[in-house]
Amino acid sequence: MPLQLRSLIRPDATLELSLAEVPMPTPTHDDEVVVRVEASPLNPSDLGLLFGGADMATAKVSGTAERPVVTASLSPVALAAAGSRVGQSMPVGNEGAGTVVAAGASAAAQALLGKKVALLGGAMYAEYRAMPAAQCLPLPDGATAAQGASCFVNPLTSLGMVETMRREGHSALVHTAAASNLGQMLNRICLKDGVPLVNIVRKPEQAALLRGQGAQHVVDSSQPDFQAALVEAIAATGATLAFDAIGGGKLAGQILLAMEAAIARKEQAAYSRYGSNVHKQVYVYGSLDRGPIEIARGFGMTWGVGGWLLFPFLQKIGPHHVQQLKARVAAELTTTFASHYTREVGLAEALTLEAIGVYGKQATGEKVLMRPSAG
Amino acid sequence: MPLQLRSLIRPDATLELSLAEVPMPTPTHDDEVVVRVEASPLNPSDLGLLFGGADMATAKVSGTAERPVVTASLSPVALAAAGSRVGQSMPVGNEGAGTVVAAGASAAAQALLGKKVALLGGAMYAEYRAMPAAQCLPLPDGATAAQGASCFVNPLTSLGMVETMRREGHSALVHTAAASNLGQMLNRICLKDGVPLVNIVRKPEQAALLRGQGAQHVVDSSQPDFQAALVEAIAATGATLAFDAIGGGKLAGQILLAMEAAIARKEQAAYSRYGSNVHKQVYVYGSLDRGPIEIARGFGMTWGVGGWLLFPFLQKIGPHHVQQLKARVAAELTTTFASHYTREVGLAEALTLEAIGVYGKQATGEKVLMRPSAG
Repeated sequence: MPLQLRSLIRPDATLELSLAEVPMPTPTHDDEVVVRVEASPLNPSDLGLLFGGADMATAKVSGTAERPVVTASLSPVALAAAGSRVGQSMPVGNEGAGTVVAAGASAAAQALLGKKVALLGGAMYAEYRAMPAAQCLPLPDGATAAQGASCFVNPLTSLGMVETMRREGHSALVHTAAASNLGQMLNRICLKDGVPLVNIVRKPEQAALLRGQGAQHVVDSSQPDFQAALVEAIAATGATLAFDAIGGGKLAGQILLAMEAAIARKEQAAYSRYGSNVHKQVYVYGSLDRGPIEIARGFGMTWGVGGWLLFPFLQKIGPHHVQQLKARVAAELTTTFASHYTREVGLAEALTLEAIGVYGKQATGEKVLMRPSAG
Repeated sequence: MPLQLRSLIRPDATLELSLAEVPMPTPTHDDEVVVRVEASPLNPSDLGLLFGGADMATAKVSGTAERPVVTASLSPVALAAAGSRVGQSMPVGNEGAGTVVAAGASAAAQALLGKKVALLGGAMYAEYRAMPAAQCLPLPDGATAAQGASCFVNPLTSLGMVETMRREGHSALVHTAAASNLGQMLNRICLKDGVPLVNIVRKPEQAALLRGQGAQHVVDSSQPDFQAALVEAIAATGATLAFDAIGGGKLAGQILLAMEAAIARKEQAAYSRYGSNVHKQVYVYGSLDRGPIEIARGFGMTWGVGGWLLFPFLQKIGPHHVQQLKARVAAELTTTFASHYTREVGLAEALTLEAIGVYGKQATGEKVLMRPSAG
């Protein structure tokens, strides 16, 4: 029987990752297809569900090489936060791509038979996945499953940032952890669309990488002049909106402070003890640092920090607009929206401590591609 | 010549508070009046401009009893934050009330002659203030200047909170530092308008005070069961919007956490690693704690924390609606919108270390009324 990766939080505060044997899916109605999943990325947005807040430093592996079982401990706080998922064996994997190997009777489903398609919807860390034909995105001719594996999360998130900027009346962006796959993608979109972008990175080599890809404003938070350089870059772009992948720590507040300083310089405004009345916003969309967000103020009263998430955004803009975004992704799949992987793992290999050590640390520049089926 | 209180930040990082002699104002056009300012509150929103970020623990008094001069030191950070106000001698005092003693030729101005009016617009810590007649709010017959001194900031702020709640789709409120004059006012508005309100206080006697005024949901952050009690109160009211006067510390995050727990209990929803999709918002409108805001997450991705300020809010709702709010304040001046003062000071007395020690600490339950003119 085909394998599917499962994540279970047991009531004894133990995370258990394993490979379950599941029945081979078949089309349950005329409009459904079955896809052999050949490639699926290990995104930061997958790791929350996969690890369930467990302390992966405590991870142990048992079972066999073909059927490994990983266990790790949860703190009482993490167990409480896990809430209703405790005791539920959950499939994992937001997106992937593969070949349609079975199809229902409808013309739309039959038309996909043998085609390579991209999928979004969970349970992608599995050898096979059933899916409505309408939710499959056919890949351009010649594209591989690896090229189509990350069609949705990073492309739609980065497009969503630019779209949010336009909808909320801003004209430039700040992005953190900017050398990530997503950050490189956002940089390509902004270069192509003429959107000024301030890229914040954490290492000199990341700054060099982005500059090599044409980024005009790159600021390295590891440098002693970070805050001053950030003000300069924000002043040059006029950015009043930031998307922050990191979350914990002082960065969100530092960005707001730099925005206010840039605005004050431009406005040469009369003193107001409440600061400028230009709205400054940081959306936190990731949790690379899971610690508390520390916002030291000093940037007036016209500001906001909040969560931003892809799926509510897509719901807000509506299916017609989502379809336009997806069409752009398909059209620019191997250029603007190309993803790069530094490693590939099979289902069983993903459950080794060595592989977890690589994709679990979410290091910028390292990205792992799961290969659930040999394909 | 009449006196006016002034706040000056000198380039040598010293705050200087003094009484300046200014020319007696006269109506400069037909529609202007001159008001003898008889009462003006020392609101937290005045102290930012008054103290300019100086460390008031370093305050010294020189000069004479009639013309005291207070000096205090600013840290380099506070000096930098003072920006363009350095070197500018600034009048202080957002609002006040008094008697119209001179009027321009227009019928509207002449009609106010001898009347008691309330004023908003700065420079109220002064014996006299010129003002356009249209910006004077005539007090109800028999009302004193003390009763009319706080007609604007606290009443419009508390009404603005309820109005913001309605406009942004929430149905109940959380308020912190809830035993303040503003908090008691908000409690009276919510009781009258049927808006469920969770009052967060920091001391048992404050909880007793609010309960004595009919508050149904009072939670004391000094108690060991604070977080659990907060969840209960939020669950009972359905509040998803909070107004926070404190700012610094962990409270904003604790409120978001309690909101999410109350929502999860109600929804009994399937597990989502992103939390509920109900938007939870905390608006910070004060800085009783000037330290960093620390937001420990764990309440999903659908949240916001941001600044909220009265004047941009009034601009947003427009003059017609503002007029409606002001009319309500005038009609309920001695009931819903009554303010209570624990002490009165004259202009010179306000510049004593002893008085600064009282109004400077912004203790809930203590409120000082300035009496610029004998009246």
